[in-house]
Amino acid sequence: MANPTAAMLVIGDEILSGRTRDANMFYLAGELANHGIDLKEVRVVSDDAQAIVTAVTALSGQYDQVFTSGGIGPTHDDITADCIARAFDAHLDVRDDARAILAEHYRASGKELNAARLRMARIPEGATLIENPVSAAPGFTLRNVHVMAGVPSVFQAMVASVLSTLTGGAPLLSQTLRVDRGEGDIAETLSQVAETYTDLSIGCYPFQQNGAFGANIVLRGTDGARIEAAMNALVAAFKE
Amino acid sequence: MANPTAAMLVIGDEILSGRTRDANMFYLAGELANHGIDLKEVRVVSDDAQAIVTAVTALSGQYDQVFTSGGIGPTHDDITADCIARAFDAHLDVRDDARAILAEHYRASGKELNAARLRMARIPEGATLIENPVSAAPGFTLRNVHVMAGVPSVFQAMVASVLSTLTGGAPLLSQTLRVDRGEGDIAETLSQVAETYTDLSIGCYPFQQNGAFGANIVLRGTDGARIEAAMNALVAAFKE
Repeated sequence: MANPTAAMLVIGDEILSGRTRDANMFYLAGELANHGIDLKEVRVVSDDAQAIVTAVTALSGQYDQVFTSGGIGPTHDDITADCIARAFDAHLDVRDDARAILAEHYRASGKELNAARLRMARIPEGATLIENPVSAAPGFTLRNVHVMAGVPSVFQAMVASVLSTLTGGAPLLSQTLRVDRGEGDIAETLSQVAETYTDLSIGCYPFQQNGAFGANIVLRGTDGARIEAAMNALVAAFKE
Repeated sequence: MANPTAAMLVIGDEILSGRTRDANMFYLAGELANHGIDLKEVRVVSDDAQAIVTAVTALSGQYDQVFTSGGIGPTHDDITADCIARAFDAHLDVRDDARAILAEHYRASGKELNAARLRMARIPEGATLIENPVSAAPGFTLRNVHVMAGVPSVFQAMVASVLSTLTGGAPLLSQTLRVDRGEGDIAETLSQVAETYTDLSIGCYPFQQNGAFGANIVLRGTDGARIEAAMNALVAAFKE
């Protein structure tokens, strides 16, 4: 059976303006691979309502699971919850369960649960909360969309929480072979092996080191024995 | 006049599988900001022909410029040129100008211009070549799509070459104010300033340092005097 598919939607002007280097995509990609969920597409959009609604609608229809990061804090530019609610035509308001979590958190830390912070308790009707062990304000899952914070430590904790509830397929396995030849010298062999092992993904990633060309060949798939066999075929071919 | 808009399309299983952390998005975002071109969307798709054709068609229609990275090497998984040609219904074959560049490069380096390497001279009809000062194999521009290599050093050289041919708008300016308060304490002030300065983008990026909460407030826009005025308004508000 094929693995479930997933997409990620990164929401944030700070990525598109070049100010911040995204860290969440790399983290989520690794976690999904381990969990047997195939990440098929990532989109990065700005803090623009129409762009977010369009992207989440498209991705939610096309893939089994959608993971979003960013835009769920207390400030005016945090509009992700509004957009998800709009995309699914769900009512959005402060919800008692989320308010209770925030009230407890701010009471314990001696801070005021003011109007801005209360925005973070606005959760679409029908959504389930995603726990935030770092800073309390919860994420949420509505249908197949998991809405999480952009701050990496919070994002990572939320991903762990969501993945424990999802049924993945077989984890993606991989083996890497380093070849100290230029990509152009190994391309034909790779094509032949790729034709035999159509169930594997065979990638070739060139590098240059101390002036010499080389490449890492990465075999990926869910069947360890097939990867092993393809790797042996490659090693034999490059010995010739 | 509004700045030209742009999108980026990153092509590569190695990003989606979590093996490689993308470096080109961050680089391009910074270069476009300096050049007065607004990066509005990034998509990452796998080495899958249908996914690439669909994405490039959508982005090319929606934005002024599209920049792609990845998938133009000599191996079987390098299918970007085929997909761009298909998206625009352009004929694709080895082109004499590209072949001449490769022939010269491999003659100088004493390597064979074999069939795999010759794949890199396949350029869609009507495209103009993008110079590759690092490893010779050119990128190309077809209509508003700039097709570049995924290897960061080559990508960066190609971006420089393309940007010198494009007319940008006013560079994106920014100023950052660090505030040692939690995001929830400053959100209301930010909303008020954002309502007055609708021509600026005002982002708030929370952090935690030595157990204390703080936030970097970033004002972005093309009018330095407006940014200055908004910054003064923020500083005054936070002094109270």
